Amino acid sequence: MAIPPRQETLTFPPSQAALLAPYLPPLSPSSSSSSTPPRPHVTLTYATSLDAALALGPGIRTALSGPASKAMTHYLRTRHDAILVGVGTAVADDPALNARIAGAAGIETQPRPVVLDPRGRWDVRDGARVVAAARAGLGKAVWVVVGAGVEVAAGRRAVVEGCGGRVVRVGVRGDGGRFAWGDVLAVLWEEGVRSLMVEGGGEVINSLLAPSGNGFVDSVIVTVAPTWLGQGGVVVSPPRTVGEDGAPAPPVRLADVQWCPLGEDVVLCGRIQR
Amino acid sequence: MAIPPRQETLTFPPSQAALLAPYLPPLSPSSSSSSTPPRPHVTLTYATSLDAALALGPGIRTALSGPASKAMTHYLRTRHDAILVGVGTAVADDPALNARIAGAAGIETQPRPVVLDPRGRWDVRDGARVVAAARAGLGKAVWVVVGAGVEVAAGRRAVVEGCGGRVVRVGVRGDGGRFAWGDVLAVLWEEGVRSLMVEGGGEVINSLLAPSGNGFVDSVIVTVAPTWLGQGGVVVSPPRTVGEDGAPAPPVRLADVQWCPLGEDVVLCGRIQR
Repeated sequence: MAIPPRQETLTFPPSQAALLAPYLPPLSPSSSSSSTPPRPHVTLTYATSLDAALALGPGIRTALSGPASKAMTHYLRTRHDAILVGVGTAVADDPALNARIAGAAGIETQPRPVVLDPRGRWDVRDGARVVAAARAGLGKAVWVVVGAGVEVAAGRRAVVEGCGGRVVRVGVRGDGGRFAWGDVLAVLWEEGVRSLMVEGGGEVINSLLAPSGNGFVDSVIVTVAPTWLGQGGVVVSPPRTVGEDGAPAPPVRLADVQWCPLGEDVVLCGRIQR
Repeated sequence: MAIPPRQETLTFPPSQAALLAPYLPPLSPSSSSSSTPPRPHVTLTYATSLDAALALGPGIRTALSGPASKAMTHYLRTRHDAILVGVGTAVADDPALNARIAGAAGIETQPRPVVLDPRGRWDVRDGARVVAAARAGLGKAVWVVVGAGVEVAAGRRAVVEGCGGRVVRVGVRGDGGRFAWGDVLAVLWEEGVRSLMVEGGGEVINSLLAPSGNGFVDSVIVTVAPTWLGQGGVVVSPPRTVGEDGAPAPPVRLADVQWCPLGEDVVLCGRIQR
């Protein structure tokens, strides 16, 4: 028996949505991409403490930002074809990954949940909130992106496909069996995804902010809450890398910056400075 | 020969200063303190990246915030009797610790520089910018706060006293020869300091945000710059501690929060939530 999903309805004021508009994918996406090879518009979004932590520790669900920021996240979900999290977040948070906001009526306004699981370790069950939401018609069915050669147990596949979802295959690269962002985005584009919101967790975000990932990021929307979680949290801080000349790569910086106070939090919008 | 200090003059608009006013010590402090034992008003202020770093690494001067934030820092210096940094910052940054801002005319508007040096490791020379600024009449002379039993070499003492400064003694506590904040603040109060701005570095800020320190903090003013310095920086993140009941102390959170965009940066003002 699937547990009925918790359902709530949030509201996000149009005046606040207007501030975000310049950073969001077009409402009517064209069938072509300005990138070669083509890929979806990628919005990186997360909520952090003043000490850059997403959570008190791995696997610990941590309420950081306030209700207004939560409503914003759900509004953002309606503005993207798909939302992506890593398997760690899927396991730790058991997120429903749907848009629980006024105006998100009908399944076509819901984003496609995508779970990045290169080594096939997500033991997805019928009780998972993302599965239950799909069964109840409150969200689209999940796509699980798994490494090309990785075996997925029949029971897990049955849960995913039973709710209408799919196991999607992407080749992994040498270093530790990880995906390359270009490969994941190319497959999602082929599957019709024109805009992607990347939500977490720490490992996914840090790899997208790294030099090998941040060229794929079109916009960044970060919520900062006025708290320090303290040492030992799951931290957003990209790895330091060295360029071809042996010099350290310069820090990643945002351009076209806008800071919008939202309740007790602040929302930072920007684009990666090239 | 002292090197003549670099001198510049910054401006900070009154409209922006007005936003900070609720978080600053009174312009005409009373001779009594609302605290028992009496202590100065303490403002904690620092500039950080999105990944909570003050600098790329220990001893690496890192330009983080923009010119408007720098002007704010110098304005804040005029609004406090004293400004305090740890010895690591004194060594790494060689700061002048004066207020280089329009309106800071006359030595009486300058803050007293205080360097916290429990183990007496600051090899202060005549060429230090804080010493040169005092000799040139561009700043007050430095006070070096040293552990009660620590010997200070005659040459260093001569430099400090030669520019009008002093070596101030405070007892250290058991754990690693550190000061307790209450002891430092009590001595500064006795010396006439009614308001203190704590500027850095990482070790000083983290100890002031820790449960043993944050009860002494009256207000917090943090500038956040829209950049990630990457893993390995000098990070502001207080230590996690356990309460008397064995449970983890709750995260430190700010109340009375205000976010003010300032150039490309944002300035967060708040008070520690009790």
